[in-house]
Amino acid sequence: MGRRAFPLSRVYRLLEPGPVVMVTTAREGRANIMTMSWHTMMAFEPPIVGCVISNRSHTFSLLKDTKECVINIPTVELAKKAVGCGNTTGRSVDKFRVFGLTPVPASCVAAPLIGECYGNLECRVVDARMVSKYNFFILEVLKAWIDPARKEPRTIHHLGRGAFMVAGKTIKLPSRMK
Amino acid sequence: MGRRAFPLSRVYRLLEPGPVVMVTTAREGRANIMTMSWHTMMAFEPPIVGCVISNRSHTFSLLKDTKECVINIPTVELAKKAVGCGNTTGRSVDKFRVFGLTPVPASCVAAPLIGECYGNLECRVVDARMVSKYNFFILEVLKAWIDPARKEPRTIHHLGRGAFMVAGKTIKLPSRMK
Repeated sequence: MGRRAFPLSRVYRLLEPGPVVMVTTAREGRANIMTMSWHTMMAFEPPIVGCVISNRSHTFSLLKDTKECVINIPTVELAKKAVGCGNTTGRSVDKFRVFGLTPVPASCVAAPLIGECYGNLECRVVDARMVSKYNFFILEVLKAWIDPARKEPRTIHHLGRGAFMVAGKTIKLPSRMK
Repeated sequence: MGRRAFPLSRVYRLLEPGPVVMVTTAREGRANIMTMSWHTMMAFEPPIVGCVISNRSHTFSLLKDTKECVINIPTVELAKKAVGCGNTTGRSVDKFRVFGLTPVPASCVAAPLIGECYGNLECRVVDARMVSKYNFFILEVLKAWIDPARKEPRTIHHLGRGAFMVAGKTIKLPSRMK
């Protein structure tokens, strides 16, 4: 797998372009996966991430209870499985088994990493004040992992109604931003 | 320009893939532009958008005072100007003039649309509770515009340190999501 720790100061470079992510949670030894696009960076370091998770989802109740999750970043090779995870509910299905994904133990949280994903961010809920009104969880990234072998990961980006944009070429511009 | 009203129910399809956007604000007849990547959809309809705007930026003070802005979505043809707007401050520069962008009157807010942008979302701040701690503004999109002539807009997506991913091809998958 070649998984390697990734500096927390650079986590924003994974999430800012808006990839579809797969959120894993776990309770009493049972893990779940949810596919998600409603997330944003909120601070650089420690990296703080905000995300909306529907209160009708199984992941909502797991995240609310355990206050832990992993944000996994798939590439286009996993697109079908990511959509499959979005179409099913963990209440009735073991998504790791059904979709042939590999749970890998995390180092700071009980929820597993998805072994096939390009990047993995172990997270803890640090602010739940916006959960009741907006289903909006504020997470701190405790530990980040990346597969260093993949140089230009072709992430997928949700356009709605079954359409996804696949990451295209990279351009360089004289930006003074981080 | 061929600008056309865009259904509010479909605004999520513009923002979910995570494009770099250009936020316009205005006070006392002077308009400003800020380039931003830290945003997420929070609800479908009315469309609610959350975004982080640095409290060191000129836009922060304008948005806090006026509670109005426009989120403009540029394509790769505007990438240099978007980066230029990110590298400068509206405290000392009229960015519309310096970067040769066209302010177009909005219909619901005082801030102008950027005429050259592919999409424009007129927004009002509806929740400022998270501003003091996270610089996080919650906006409602009041009116949306799009240039219908551009079928596959090549949006840009921030990767950090001057690198931007340009939107690649679109794939279709049997997703049951909106």
